[in-house]
Amino acid sequence: MKTLFKSVLALLTISLMVVSCVQNSNDSSGALSSSKAEKVYVAPGEHDDFYAFVSGGFSGQLAVYGLPSGRLFKVIPVFSVDAEKAYGFNEETKPMLNTSHGFIPWDDAHHPDISQTNGVVDGRYVYINGNNTPRIAKIDLTTFETTEIIEIPNSAGNHSSSYVTENTEYVVAGTRFGVPVPQRDMPIAEYKGNFKGALSFLKVDPEDGGMDIKFQILMPGFDYDKAHPGRGDSHGWFFFTTYNSEEAHSLLEVNASQNDKDFIAAVNWKKIEEYVNNGGGKKMPANYAHNVYDEHTHTATSTMKKEVLTVDPTEVPGAIYFLPTPKSPHGCDVSPTGEYIVGSGKLSADVTVHSFTKMMDAINNKKFDGDAYGIPILNYEDILAGSVKSGGLGPLHTEFDGKGNAYTTFFISSEVVKWKLGTWEVIDRKPTYYSVGHLMIPGGNSGQPFGKYVLAMNKITKDRYLPTGPEVTQSAQLYDITGEKMELLLDFPTVGEPHYAAGIPADIVAKNSRKIFRLEENQHPYAAKTEAEAKVVRKGNEVHINMTMIRSHFAPDNIEGIQVGDKVYFHVTNLEQDYDVPHGISMIGANTSELLIMPGQTETFVWEPKQVGVWPFYCTDFCSALHQEMQGYVRVSPKGSSVPISFTLDDDAVDAE
Amino acid sequence: MKTLFKSVLALLTISLMVVSCVQNSNDSSGALSSSKAEKVYVAPGEHDDFYAFVSGGFSGQLAVYGLPSGRLFKVIPVFSVDAEKAYGFNEETKPMLNTSHGFIPWDDAHHPDISQTNGVVDGRYVYINGNNTPRIAKIDLTTFETTEIIEIPNSAGNHSSSYVTENTEYVVAGTRFGVPVPQRDMPIAEYKGNFKGALSFLKVDPEDGGMDIKFQILMPGFDYDKAHPGRGDSHGWFFFTTYNSEEAHSLLEVNASQNDKDFIAAVNWKKIEEYVNNGGGKKMPANYAHNVYDEHTHTATSTMKKEVLTVDPTEVPGAIYFLPTPKSPHGCDVSPTGEYIVGSGKLSADVTVHSFTKMMDAINNKKFDGDAYGIPILNYEDILAGSVKSGGLGPLHTEFDGKGNAYTTFFISSEVVKWKLGTWEVIDRKPTYYSVGHLMIPGGNSGQPFGKYVLAMNKITKDRYLPTGPEVTQSAQLYDITGEKMELLLDFPTVGEPHYAAGIPADIVAKNSRKIFRLEENQHPYAAKTEAEAKVVRKGNEVHINMTMIRSHFAPDNIEGIQVGDKVYFHVTNLEQDYDVPHGISMIGANTSELLIMPGQTETFVWEPKQVGVWPFYCTDFCSALHQEMQGYVRVSPKGSSVPISFTLDDDAVDAE
Repeated sequence: MKTLFKSVLALLTISLMVVSCVQNSNDSSGALSSSKAEKVYVAPGEHDDFYAFVSGGFSGQLAVYGLPSGRLFKVIPVFSVDAEKAYGFNEETKPMLNTSHGFIPWDDAHHPDISQTNGVVDGRYVYINGNNTPRIAKIDLTTFETTEIIEIPNSAGNHSSSYVTENTEYVVAGTRFGVPVPQRDMPIAEYKGNFKGALSFLKVDPEDGGMDIKFQILMPGFDYDKAHPGRGDSHGWFFFTTYNSEEAHSLLEVNASQNDKDFIAAVNWKKIEEYVNNGGGKKMPANYAHNVYDEHTHTATSTMKKEVLTVDPTEVPGAIYFLPTPKSPHGCDVSPTGEYIVGSGKLSADVTVHSFTKMMDAINNKKFDGDAYGIPILNYEDILAGSVKSGGLGPLHTEFDGKGNAYTTFFISSEVVKWKLGTWEVIDRKPTYYSVGHLMIPGGNSGQPFGKYVLAMNKITKDRYLPTGPEVTQSAQLYDITGEKMELLLDFPTVGEPHYAAGIPADIVAKNSRKIFRLEENQHPYAAKTEAEAKVVRKGNEVHINMTMIRSHFAPDNIEGIQVGDKVYFHVTNLEQDYDVPHGISMIGANTSELLIMPGQTETFVWEPKQVGVWPFYCTDFCSALHQEMQGYVRVSPKGSSVPISFTLDDDAVDAE
Repeated sequence: MKTLFKSVLALLTISLMVVSCVQNSNDSSGALSSSKAEKVYVAPGEHDDFYAFVSGGFSGQLAVYGLPSGRLFKVIPVFSVDAEKAYGFNEETKPMLNTSHGFIPWDDAHHPDISQTNGVVDGRYVYINGNNTPRIAKIDLTTFETTEIIEIPNSAGNHSSSYVTENTEYVVAGTRFGVPVPQRDMPIAEYKGNFKGALSFLKVDPEDGGMDIKFQILMPGFDYDKAHPGRGDSHGWFFFTTYNSEEAHSLLEVNASQNDKDFIAAVNWKKIEEYVNNGGGKKMPANYAHNVYDEHTHTATSTMKKEVLTVDPTEVPGAIYFLPTPKSPHGCDVSPTGEYIVGSGKLSADVTVHSFTKMMDAINNKKFDGDAYGIPILNYEDILAGSVKSGGLGPLHTEFDGKGNAYTTFFISSEVVKWKLGTWEVIDRKPTYYSVGHLMIPGGNSGQPFGKYVLAMNKITKDRYLPTGPEVTQSAQLYDITGEKMELLLDFPTVGEPHYAAGIPADIVAKNSRKIFRLEENQHPYAAKTEAEAKVVRKGNEVHINMTMIRSHFAPDNIEGIQVGDKVYFHVTNLEQDYDVPHGISMIGANTSELLIMPGQTETFVWEPKQVGVWPFYCTDFCSALHQEMQGYVRVSPKGSSVPISFTLDDDAVDAE
């Protein structure tokens, strides 16, 4: 069996190589090229039509692009430290990366989703999952900053996440890997029947978008791969693909590909919500971090939570069903009306589409084909709406244009296939360069897609750009989908891995974007809101410097009385109140990053001087004609020195209090 | 005096605000826009004409862009940790960021310069300076990786760096801040006359581009701001701008702007080289890191060097002269022929151009205007070639097109001004949006510029793109300079701060770009070059896993016998030998980043499990149709457990040696 399967694998690998070695195709000649150039050109001073929030994948961050230009506007630090912005380095944001495993400087960010109101993307927040050490983050789209991260207990590989329901009632997290729940020392070989797969539902605060785990469903130990919420008639349900229903624990490329069909789990979350609201479920000891950034103190706090409410699915009859779906289904996508649930068997040629109506009929008629761990299995034929005979190989993900069409990516045959909902006929297909994973249509994940462009996010790049050594960029491709046939407009490289993206018309978001932080609202305990408030205070071997920065000087800018062995806190406030006048600060030899401080904000770095001497600091962000003059010195004396704390303000010496 | 000067500052600030508030200008209508769109459009599958190596500035990295498209191909980690690429996180690259102050995860990268042969950019290496904790890095343009970083002792703020001479004989570093040499505990107020400013000359190995400090010139304690080498007739000389010849130490925006003229220091490095080759100079104790990455072991080593050769400039008569230059000169640029030395007084309206021929005449005729700390000062009028009456305000930097024209940026009046070498007449001026710092013409820093485009790198962005909260991207603008007048083609955002850039025709570099690392050349001590070589070995509380990865599994993929308190080293080798087939690996709860491993390479991360349980790891880079199946488990038992080390290879259990 292993040998047979390996032949299949070899074939897949070869077909992939063939695709990847196809000669460069380009359509750059003459008038056609000119028209495409114009379609993606955003002239100097003009703005793009759409924001695309593109996951950084294994970079752990979220990148903000404009469409159609493909220009990168910002990399928002989410799960990984960022020495440019001091994220994870300054004292204020370190708590954001706290977990039950301690401080973790990285994660694998996968699936951004924009908050929705009445099934339409509303542009308030982006949620995104950390796949490795299971977490979900919230990004505030007024500041474009990460303002909350919550860890997901009893999970490993938070992959089927972080999708929102049509009024952002919930954001979900589904474990990719089965694990012992609770974790314990046991043989890996005893996986089958003993490991669990948690599906977590996080309630979202309608006021501030804050998250709290409402309940976790402890499902069988399959691998939960992708998820999407129902909408319209299917609102109240959530759908999760599974693979490895074989419950293998080694060499999964062979052992988890034995069953012809795995499942889509259909979860009636409203029923479970009712169950737990009525006292159902079981509280279980847990240990997970909930980190929240306060915009007024400009500081994050981390709280360890000690309990989680778990639900045994067999205790809530009628809440969960398994929908058999062929060939290790990966993508699980729901049409804008909520009627169709698309399951893409990644080792298949066809795309399987289930009908929500048929599913409900089968459930109501109790037409089951046995059960798995007590969860009823529906008949494949009873629920099938149709199957797209794609002619491609390796379907992964589907989005919708809101005009009755669906677009599915095919990894192995390296293409996007456009097909019609209801008739399942293939309308168009266009190659991708190469090996496309996800695709994105702005709002394509909601009840109201904005079907002007589709963005294909590719896994292999090879020769598409100028080479950069063994490591080459990953890449996105933009297609115009306003016509019957798709038209490839633009290749653009991405930062990190463009794992998935969420798009939205620019005007929904841009109007709410903040320009500055107001100094009078700054509640940072060490803020100096005027130069007169600047000071240096010794507390034992800690020294706290409340410093200000404004074009083009620091206050104070000469500091004496620091000793080797001190822990020196630079609490620095940017006094500017104009748009786009950040300042930076760095200190020679500090074992941390710079600070990059926005107008009205206070940030802190710690410096532990190891050598006596006179050491400079300076502004790192070119701020004015006299930026180079924005600098200062700290004198470091030996431990126990009698040099008193003193400093200069406006070129005059001041003694410490 | 302070009050008067502050009025000037206020005026500068206001003029800056006026510039920044100018209404968006765009030229996007009709045929004109179409033509511009076509000029920057690189159709899918086609390649850009130029590489632009754009400093990340305060990000600490080096970004690789294509021109004319403005697309970002790679962010090369240089001075800052990068959790995506594991730079500074894996065991192999941690030594790259070692310094005399310990491990530093960040720096401020300023001025990339491409290696030259016979005064022409040769595309072998890029050198770039770390400004904060003084360092110079070398990037190898076959792998596009940082392969060497050397710390610069006796310096602080390595700003006038890292420029190369016309055969890459030397790369230089000049301290921005005066400091005590050697460092010692002394009052900051005693700066004047006591602090020093070191100019360091690093000899470059013609074979491998490696650096070694040949000598340091201990100059007066001015601030050394920018630098450029002579070329052609002036080859053998190096020119450094200074500011703060007042030697102020506090409120420099006022106190360092008192002198009408500061200096350009002209250094005859050939004369000093001869002096030290004949035994001149003084060896001084020092402590600085020299970090080298070995491409065969895929591992960096850090060596602390303990001595540096210093030169007292007064001991080498005829080697160094001061050229008076008005208004706190910032940029110091040398024309392609080597005849003109352009000094841009940043508080001036005019651009000062010195003549190398006149300088040599004055030196030969010993026409001096006194001295500063024993270094002869030439007469301003004797050496002046001409002055560009620009009509702008705040000149910063100049590049050349190789056709007799120079292009100077003006920060305060926010424009690029084109003028003619020799006649000094202004030919054209175009606004920038907003407040331009450096500019770049490919090869513009050498004897042979490729004058097709100029890239302006701006300090302020405001409304040029869709907003992203208080922090907005920094920005570059691309102008066509093939005609008499410049034509603005494109705004594109940048990562980090586009501090400066170096450009080169693509064909010089692309042909040497490596595609893979050859497995048979891998000399990493823990490499497993076949699955059969994979193993798990316990050494006390250290466990070393020699692991392999190939589409689509790890070997081993189940590991037991690990205990809480162990230090587990995952040494992972990517067995692939195809272009663009990296794999990644991450482990839940590891306090480090993922590894992203190129074909043929070995990398290592350390995991210190804190809790018993069964914990998964997985491939982080979507590598094949069965990427999701590329995973494994580690069982962690309590400390002292009797569970023996065992692991699976190809689904079969293996006991450890």
